[in-house]
Amino acid sequence: MPLPVPVLPEGVDPAWLPPAAFRAVGGRRTLIRGSGPLVETVHGEVAQACQLFGGRVVRDAAPDGAYDLVLGPGAEDLGDEGFTLAREGGTTTVGACGGRGLLYGLFHVVRLGEDAFRGERARVVHRPALALRMLDHWDNVAVHPVMGQVERGYAGGSLFWEDGRARGGLERVRAYGRLLAACGINAVAVNNVNVHETEARLLTDRIGEVARLADAFRPYGIRTHLSVTFAAPMLLGGLLTADPLDGTVRDWWAGATRRVYEAIPDFGGYVVKADSEGRPGPFAYGRSHADGANMLAAALDPFGGTVHWRAFVYDHRQDWRDRTTDRARAAYDHFVPLDGEFAGNAVLQVKHGPMDFQAREPVSPLIGAMPRTRLAVELQVTQEYTGQQRHVCWLGPMWSEVLRFRYDDTRVGGLARGGLVAVSNAGDDPFWTGHPLAQANLYTFGRLAWRPDAGPREVLDEWIQLTFPDAPARLAGGLHAVLDGSWRTYEKYTAPLGVGFMVQPGHHYGPSVDGYEYSPWGTYHFADRDGVGVDRSAATGTGYAGQYGKPWSELYESPDTCPDELLLFFHHVPYGHVLRSGKTVIQHIYDTHFEGVAEVEEARATWASLAGLVDPARHARVAERYEEQLRCAREWRDQVNSYFFRKSGVPDARGRRVY
Amino acid sequence: MPLPVPVLPEGVDPAWLPPAAFRAVGGRRTLIRGSGPLVETVHGEVAQACQLFGGRVVRDAAPDGAYDLVLGPGAEDLGDEGFTLAREGGTTTVGACGGRGLLYGLFHVVRLGEDAFRGERARVVHRPALALRMLDHWDNVAVHPVMGQVERGYAGGSLFWEDGRARGGLERVRAYGRLLAACGINAVAVNNVNVHETEARLLTDRIGEVARLADAFRPYGIRTHLSVTFAAPMLLGGLLTADPLDGTVRDWWAGATRRVYEAIPDFGGYVVKADSEGRPGPFAYGRSHADGANMLAAALDPFGGTVHWRAFVYDHRQDWRDRTTDRARAAYDHFVPLDGEFAGNAVLQVKHGPMDFQAREPVSPLIGAMPRTRLAVELQVTQEYTGQQRHVCWLGPMWSEVLRFRYDDTRVGGLARGGLVAVSNAGDDPFWTGHPLAQANLYTFGRLAWRPDAGPREVLDEWIQLTFPDAPARLAGGLHAVLDGSWRTYEKYTAPLGVGFMVQPGHHYGPSVDGYEYSPWGTYHFADRDGVGVDRSAATGTGYAGQYGKPWSELYESPDTCPDELLLFFHHVPYGHVLRSGKTVIQHIYDTHFEGVAEVEEARATWASLAGLVDPARHARVAERYEEQLRCAREWRDQVNSYFFRKSGVPDARGRRVY
Repeated sequence: MPLPVPVLPEGVDPAWLPPAAFRAVGGRRTLIRGSGPLVETVHGEVAQACQLFGGRVVRDAAPDGAYDLVLGPGAEDLGDEGFTLAREGGTTTVGACGGRGLLYGLFHVVRLGEDAFRGERARVVHRPALALRMLDHWDNVAVHPVMGQVERGYAGGSLFWEDGRARGGLERVRAYGRLLAACGINAVAVNNVNVHETEARLLTDRIGEVARLADAFRPYGIRTHLSVTFAAPMLLGGLLTADPLDGTVRDWWAGATRRVYEAIPDFGGYVVKADSEGRPGPFAYGRSHADGANMLAAALDPFGGTVHWRAFVYDHRQDWRDRTTDRARAAYDHFVPLDGEFAGNAVLQVKHGPMDFQAREPVSPLIGAMPRTRLAVELQVTQEYTGQQRHVCWLGPMWSEVLRFRYDDTRVGGLARGGLVAVSNAGDDPFWTGHPLAQANLYTFGRLAWRPDAGPREVLDEWIQLTFPDAPARLAGGLHAVLDGSWRTYEKYTAPLGVGFMVQPGHHYGPSVDGYEYSPWGTYHFADRDGVGVDRSAATGTGYAGQYGKPWSELYESPDTCPDELLLFFHHVPYGHVLRSGKTVIQHIYDTHFEGVAEVEEARATWASLAGLVDPARHARVAERYEEQLRCAREWRDQVNSYFFRKSGVPDARGRRVY
Repeated sequence: MPLPVPVLPEGVDPAWLPPAAFRAVGGRRTLIRGSGPLVETVHGEVAQACQLFGGRVVRDAAPDGAYDLVLGPGAEDLGDEGFTLAREGGTTTVGACGGRGLLYGLFHVVRLGEDAFRGERARVVHRPALALRMLDHWDNVAVHPVMGQVERGYAGGSLFWEDGRARGGLERVRAYGRLLAACGINAVAVNNVNVHETEARLLTDRIGEVARLADAFRPYGIRTHLSVTFAAPMLLGGLLTADPLDGTVRDWWAGATRRVYEAIPDFGGYVVKADSEGRPGPFAYGRSHADGANMLAAALDPFGGTVHWRAFVYDHRQDWRDRTTDRARAAYDHFVPLDGEFAGNAVLQVKHGPMDFQAREPVSPLIGAMPRTRLAVELQVTQEYTGQQRHVCWLGPMWSEVLRFRYDDTRVGGLARGGLVAVSNAGDDPFWTGHPLAQANLYTFGRLAWRPDAGPREVLDEWIQLTFPDAPARLAGGLHAVLDGSWRTYEKYTAPLGVGFMVQPGHHYGPSVDGYEYSPWGTYHFADRDGVGVDRSAATGTGYAGQYGKPWSELYESPDTCPDELLLFFHHVPYGHVLRSGKTVIQHIYDTHFEGVAEVEEARATWASLAGLVDPARHARVAERYEEQLRCAREWRDQVNSYFFRKSGVPDARGRRVY
């Protein structure tokens, strides 16, 4: 029986799967072969497309020239997710051995559109570069008094939880799974890594609610994961310890995990934030993070589950007076000594930069330094530090830089084994992501997880093509104009030259140059009347630059060879220091801040010129957010420029207004 | 029937009315004459004291030599609150024509202790200088998601409201009223001036709860007031406008007020925060604040009620780039043109300084500039900007400076007509005020409201004597040592030279030098690499100094004659500017910050030396808070010093550690 395609609730945007995206497939004669639940999903998709566009779909006949498209078992072993695509004699053929492969093949054909049905195509094998392509939702079940329902969420409430429990109707969760499958995501963690009291119980007496979510995701090939608290044996099991080497604790986890798998046989595994920003962890028992992770890995192993153990461990109660402690060093210092000690089904989940999802950071040296550990890289699709979905900031180019960064030959292997993970930016907002253009970030993440070396601009093309299937070239051009450079624009009007932060404490929106300067969070810029930046060199600074292999350790070590965009991350330099660009640091600050605002003004005008090419609700939503982005960008410009003018006393060489 | 003295719940501190404070009275033979509810309160007080200390109390006999103390009607008209005290032939006599006068007379005798019963005393008339001595409680009925139950409260939950309604048992409210009466307070507003939706209904269908509180306060001579929202006719009455000149609006208020008085015949009146920080007000209808206040005054007038209209009106969405707008000017600019337009039962309630309860501000020029208006001065006993009851900061000397400030001859008259009001620092904490020593602030406020020209140190003596009736001289000396100079100590380690703020945004605890520098709140210090301060002169600045009469306008106008402690409030000066003290501004900053911390260290040691003289729970609570005060004072010292060193580049002349 074909599985009906989920019906979107009234008023919810179809995102990158509008009906018209299926026009090419829906107008054809399609044969679907094979069996299994995901084949029924594929059948349902094609059947709905045919209903809309007049085509036909047949099940399990012999493949012959009567079909434009044949979806069915392939000849070779491509794993559960791979597929082949070929076209010969007027028939396009997708071959796959697993249900997911067939589904991904179908969505591939959808992306190609009419191109999939033109001329001949040599057979090409498609396989995801990374086996795990995962979204972490920082959703709370009970609304948190400070963080709200979705921690760092900017798109309304949770898709999963409402009024303190799993939503009654899960049609929208099914639709979300469908969107994710269409960009290649295959795993979702359904609750916040900061596991509060209510959410802790999802592991035990409330596992039924998680099972319902897993049921909704499963037809689109997505496994469900759960964030758990390390203190669960005490909190839920009444034990007096959570020591990972204690037998009763290990037994408790084994039993709890067995019951999870009774409820959800294809459960993905656990996500754990331990000994981080106040969360409990193995340090309390004098145990290592490998001990902690391996205990959970052992509980999950019999069932094929994985533990994702976050490497975001640092001292969040640092003394700002202490210049020897460097938060950037922390993950490396904590975890490199443990390389080789983690179990095979334990994945160490490492943020892409050493700090915390800033608009510009160097790539974390930890990622290249643990060849004997399965690593996953964590990105942040939700725009905590990049405009909170009120600003357009398409992160494809940044992620691409991270994913293409070469430490040495072992990196890709390590990453491939652990996967790519991101914090989702989706919520129950009608546009899913608050800002309609932020959908591009979610889509881009999924596609880069499938193929990390894909060109981001090419991925953006796909997103535009799917989202606006009937778009004239002028709309596509306009979307590229406002999105392509938006990350660099954002970087220009916020913290300069890689120094990071300068945001308002707590909610992290908008500028506050000294907001974190005297805080315990380890995020400083050390600006004084003479200069600015953090000396992280090995020779005179914190030594962080020495955590890289060559050539990076040498390049970052000297202000003469350090890339401009990271200069203040690695060095404290005078305002008169001349950048590789030929400008002084202070003039660079002024120039980029004026440029950044001018670029937002231009983007806003470009968007205004697209009215009539985009449906009115979407156009209005984006236009309204551009007003806020421009207001906020001006605030950034003026605060940052005034701050550095007041400190340096150096006037803008071009005589523009600095307050 | 004598009214029983309220019984304190187990574990609640008796504050300045411990049983031993009544020893002198309780051991005597007392005659009480007269009738009325408050006479029964007096009788209950004396009866309990006698029960404890072996004395006797008799009602309504003829006064003769058989009595040590006679409390009864006096010969002359002293109003409801005045009393006389005399001692002749071994009998101490308190005479009063009103019940409150008798009660205040009794508490006066309690304060005098054995002295009241020694030798002879010529007859002295005691009358409060101010008729209204009021506490405003910023208590919410429904806990506010950001501000909590008590806005700017640092002493636990509300004394009045619990679980969304008036408390079931009101014995502690009675005890609170008793404490207030003992220091002379005669009015309490029972809810936050920011009137949220739940609290708005106290005016109408929930007036019964207010009536219960009024019943609890009445036996101690305290009238109950209510904060109301200007939008009540729309919010509660379903009208389409709240225009104060609209007939239906006026009728609505008249009817609502009549029903209030049906429930509470001695109701005190309304408190209103209008057109302030987002609250609704008459501006929306193009009406003046006099129009708004007078409408409520008209509704209250038939019943003898008063409207307290707050003058805290300013633009809280200011652009920090705009240096021409000066929040300090706002109250004067808004209200002086309205002088003479307010009704006789409308009181304009003016904060003592032009900004917002900073540790150091000049006295508001508005207070001296409205001779034809009843003004009340508002102080803040709750320590929002003065250490939040984690720091010892006895505000008596500051208030005394404010109350003794002379604009011209009209000031005292104006103030006397409107009264003295303060935001309470009490909550359901066992010590009432969180920090046990913060009780001294509450007591001092009450006594200064009764007699604004009292010496604050003398008031503190009273508080010590009452609170620690058996204290040896060493304890009294120690308490003076830690309290007398605590305000100046606090000033030393926080924002320098009157510039104010530099606190963390939102909660206002702890330092953040630039925390409000680029905000819309109008609270800036304008520090750059050359200097710091706000030019409020008439000649080159915002003109605020010109709002004063002579000699103040002239004195404040020039940095040469401006008092040091207010220099940066009135002038922007270079770091090298030499103060009247002979020090440069920058060296003054370093010196005061080192001194302030040293003084806290000393106070902490003094307190430690008093162990054994104070009950252990109280000693421990204070000792624990001193640890926090010291930590926080060091943080202030280091952040302020580092900030100004980084900006000025001038090293400390004494070579101390600046980070």
